[in-house]
Amino acid sequence: MAAKQVLEEKIKQQGEVVRKLKAAKESKEKVVNGNLSSVYLKLIERSFDFLNDYLSTRSYVCGYTPTSADRILFDTISKHKTADNPVHILRWYRHIGSYPANERNDFPQYDYDKLRSLINYYLDMQISEEVTKLLELKTQLSSSSETTEVNASTIQKFTLKTPKGTRDFSPEQMALRQGVLERIVSVFKKHGAETIDTPIFELKEVLTGKYGEDSKLIYDLKDQGGEILSLRYDLTVPFARYLAMNKITNIKRYHIAKVYRRDNPSISKGRYREFYQCDFDIAGAYDPMIPDAECVKIVYEILTVLGMTPFVVKLNHRKLLDGIFEACGVPASSFRAICSAVDKLDKSPWEEVRKEMIEEKGLSEESADRIGEYVRLNGKSELVEKLMSDQKLCSNKSAMEGLEAMQLLLKYCDIYGTSDKILFDLSLARGLDYYTGVIYEAVLLGDDVAGGDDISVGSVAGGGRYDNLVGMFDPKNKQVPCVGVSVGVERLFAVMEAKLAANKKKTRTTEVQVYVATAQKNLLEERMKLCSELWDEGWKVEHSYKKNPKLLVQLQHCEEYGIPFAVILGESELKKGVVKLRVVPTREEVEVSRTSLSDEIRKRLQNLCANGSA
Amino acid sequence: MAAKQVLEEKIKQQGEVVRKLKAAKESKEKVVNGNLSSVYLKLIERSFDFLNDYLSTRSYVCGYTPTSADRILFDTISKHKTADNPVHILRWYRHIGSYPANERNDFPQYDYDKLRSLINYYLDMQISEEVTKLLELKTQLSSSSETTEVNASTIQKFTLKTPKGTRDFSPEQMALRQGVLERIVSVFKKHGAETIDTPIFELKEVLTGKYGEDSKLIYDLKDQGGEILSLRYDLTVPFARYLAMNKITNIKRYHIAKVYRRDNPSISKGRYREFYQCDFDIAGAYDPMIPDAECVKIVYEILTVLGMTPFVVKLNHRKLLDGIFEACGVPASSFRAICSAVDKLDKSPWEEVRKEMIEEKGLSEESADRIGEYVRLNGKSELVEKLMSDQKLCSNKSAMEGLEAMQLLLKYCDIYGTSDKILFDLSLARGLDYYTGVIYEAVLLGDDVAGGDDISVGSVAGGGRYDNLVGMFDPKNKQVPCVGVSVGVERLFAVMEAKLAANKKKTRTTEVQVYVATAQKNLLEERMKLCSELWDEGWKVEHSYKKNPKLLVQLQHCEEYGIPFAVILGESELKKGVVKLRVVPTREEVEVSRTSLSDEIRKRLQNLCANGSA
Repeated sequence: MAAKQVLEEKIKQQGEVVRKLKAAKESKEKVVNGNLSSVYLKLIERSFDFLNDYLSTRSYVCGYTPTSADRILFDTISKHKTADNPVHILRWYRHIGSYPANERNDFPQYDYDKLRSLINYYLDMQISEEVTKLLELKTQLSSSSETTEVNASTIQKFTLKTPKGTRDFSPEQMALRQGVLERIVSVFKKHGAETIDTPIFELKEVLTGKYGEDSKLIYDLKDQGGEILSLRYDLTVPFARYLAMNKITNIKRYHIAKVYRRDNPSISKGRYREFYQCDFDIAGAYDPMIPDAECVKIVYEILTVLGMTPFVVKLNHRKLLDGIFEACGVPASSFRAICSAVDKLDKSPWEEVRKEMIEEKGLSEESADRIGEYVRLNGKSELVEKLMSDQKLCSNKSAMEGLEAMQLLLKYCDIYGTSDKILFDLSLARGLDYYTGVIYEAVLLGDDVAGGDDISVGSVAGGGRYDNLVGMFDPKNKQVPCVGVSVGVERLFAVMEAKLAANKKKTRTTEVQVYVATAQKNLLEERMKLCSELWDEGWKVEHSYKKNPKLLVQLQHCEEYGIPFAVILGESELKKGVVKLRVVPTREEVEVSRTSLSDEIRKRLQNLCANGSA
Repeated sequence: MAAKQVLEEKIKQQGEVVRKLKAAKESKEKVVNGNLSSVYLKLIERSFDFLNDYLSTRSYVCGYTPTSADRILFDTISKHKTADNPVHILRWYRHIGSYPANERNDFPQYDYDKLRSLINYYLDMQISEEVTKLLELKTQLSSSSETTEVNASTIQKFTLKTPKGTRDFSPEQMALRQGVLERIVSVFKKHGAETIDTPIFELKEVLTGKYGEDSKLIYDLKDQGGEILSLRYDLTVPFARYLAMNKITNIKRYHIAKVYRRDNPSISKGRYREFYQCDFDIAGAYDPMIPDAECVKIVYEILTVLGMTPFVVKLNHRKLLDGIFEACGVPASSFRAICSAVDKLDKSPWEEVRKEMIEEKGLSEESADRIGEYVRLNGKSELVEKLMSDQKLCSNKSAMEGLEAMQLLLKYCDIYGTSDKILFDLSLARGLDYYTGVIYEAVLLGDDVAGGDDISVGSVAGGGRYDNLVGMFDPKNKQVPCVGVSVGVERLFAVMEAKLAANKKKTRTTEVQVYVATAQKNLLEERMKLCSELWDEGWKVEHSYKKNPKLLVQLQHCEEYGIPFAVILGESELKKGVVKLRVVPTREEVEVSRTSLSDEIRKRLQNLCANGSA
């Protein structure tokens, strides 16, 4: 109890310190008069950032002429040599340094009031440090007494979290994710893809001007005196930068990596600020629709291998959309805006989209109605033929090019055996600006996709052709045509998790085959010897890190982690040169001579695999 | 040529625009008088950041009273509604909004000179935009004429690079990296490890105070109105945060992921700002040295499986070091500083380290010499015994605890069969503050490690016990003892790359088994049909994306990518229901009926694998 009283006294004193600092700040009294160098020193020790910002718009520390405030800061910085003074400090420092020392010493006295913003920053910093000390004391107090549990957990909540919109992945989640990704990668590899990697951040200028409105969601890095950097927003723009920079004119690559968007996270919809993208792209100048049809085939194979049926792959073509807009009297400058309105047709009824076109995008009612006639159509090759003989479209070059491309693509889809899941859908528009040809999107059907749970997933893969993006990075504007698909792995993970939960199935998080246990005390070294032998033979083996663990605890560990075999060492068995081999799922136990242990495990493991129990 | 002249004229005009803006800025004339709202609008359109910084130290736009400059900005922002006005703008906006509208309209006229810093920023922005336009025109000019090649490539160099200290990985590098990582992961899995993942960034406060001096190398994210975030600096601190946050008291996990350090990159030494770490850690309160010995075993297995022999694993103990320091008269407050001096013994001779201890760390000559007697010792268990009977140490509690721990560890290393590569080395100290027990470091021996090339790699793995780190994150300071190892995969990759280059071996970047080729024109659809059949049977298959590719080009592709089989379709073969199967490495060709193609490939692939040719 005495310790508690000491703490309470300390908290009271610390509270007083904080109150005084706050009062000083409010009263505007000259809290630090005559000791400006200690203020500077404190600021510098924390970081040069504030001073650098402060000087970024000033020639002198205060007012329009040099004062003693400049001289004091100059002296403080001189003693505090550092290689990387930020740019504005450096500029100011060189300027003040250009005065002879005797002139510097004669700079007139500074005006305290003109330093208000600097002093206030210093006071805020002091206050925040003292408040931290106060909170620490309060934490100590609450952890020393049972009654203040609530306080402690409040403080913990404050510091112990992952950043907004991000999360950790537990071993169970990682096991599921790795399993799903392995199956997706195996499809990419079936189609001969290589993989590359690019840095998580790019020069900001690489990303700007590529995403349209979404650019405001890009994460920037702090300017710490160097290049201006941003976290990658997708994998497509870095891929285009990679091609242009390395002058690569053809490649078929996949890339699975995290991307970053400062979006408003919606955990319930599985939307995070840090998430995986999983992209497959074919770059190169090839004949029409051959790589495009393979991308569709890949989406088809991935969703099939993951058991994501039923699904549909919607197809459309940007040139056809542009042709339709043109034929319906939309000015070319509004194509992208109308496109993004059309894109909302999967979530909103036509009436709303029409309203947006007229009221927000300034389209005439007549034009909107004409567009409405087209974008509500979907079908297969018979629709292509119907549109080819449509009066308004057959005289439009862009529309006819789009339709011919669609005709060829549908034929190739037939050959690749993907036609049963394909829908030519004129309402598909896709958000991104950079698409120039075919676009597609795979959507899961049926509300049973999540094993009964009401998880709405919608689009799980999408992509298209973007022939002009690489050229934006080439000084001679040299194009490398590309087509690709991005698999929405986060949504697929969510569906798989829901399915597993519904089936109450558990994913194994380790691959351990044998657990070496002991039935009596003082057998640690024997256990370690056997583990070492089994490891050296290539087995995946675990044992307890306790010297004398209870047998029950060891066997429970095996059941919890789904380890198929336990080898149990006992003194009498050791003398006989045998061990007990326990088949964990059946709890059957047999005595095996130590020399034939490996063979016995191998044999029994094959049986278990054949049974599907391991 | 006419086009070129037009361009040149445009460049001249644009150059004039830039010159005028620059002159206006220098002359301090009132360039924007009377049209302040357009200045504000331009600033806002670009970003709120500048205005927010500007207002962060000001109550009013200029001077100490409200002026028309406040009224104009207020009106501009009112029309430009946005949900996320940064904090200082908001504070200012609410304050100005608290004046009645009629008072606001009567604010006195602002003083132009007091807006200098704002106007200059605006002018800089304008100048930078016009300069960009100028550069674009110059780029167009240089790409339209052959003679200015140099200019064009200069401009390209400027934008097309990865950020300082980072790099892309090509398919060849990725194939090598994935191969190395797979073998490392297989060792982790042999020992029953699970894997987890954490976000690439953490709240800044999670990282501060954990790395000592190195904290200045942490990458911060820009404050875009939300949490203050930093990129992770290693995987150990996020792991400790994960354990404390999720109240996990025991886990055995590996984590392979990128970390970020704003270090001065040294490409020749393989030091980058973005690089992989590969960590294995065992967390939990267990009996002494059992998990510690397994970490050493894992390092031993990894370096052996990667063929990184000869190597040595140096061992030491922080408690022993502290005991030695104490016995030699070092004050407790200098332990960590002396420790970091000792750590330099692998690169510097004792004389230099001694000098640092005396001159920089303020140690007495006598103390330094005493330390020198100890830290230059190394050996095996006989050294432990010798030190246990050392007069100065045997009365020191910390030293004796360290020695007893070392004795136990060496015994366990004997059992685990790692003793042949182990060295008890008193000069090993390790840089990081958080170690509390055993520490170790694996070093490659011999200058032949890189296949003859002079790549100095040194330490390739290191780690130790850190029992107090998790507690730093727990509100009740609850400890979770941990021991772990970090494998220096970037260095291992570099050694493997050098070895491959020395042996002139090529890594395959795809896993394609069959290439479907055509010998004549107009067989694209037949090719696609066969590909589709083979894909559906699970084969890894590629074909050309050209409609009518040359046979030679197709076969060259197979040789370049190491594809073992080519199936060649021809009209006469199609009629007969057969295909030509070519074994690429031997160039042997056989006719196979289409129905038995899969069986034939399977049989021959097994032969090739047995031969080691595929």
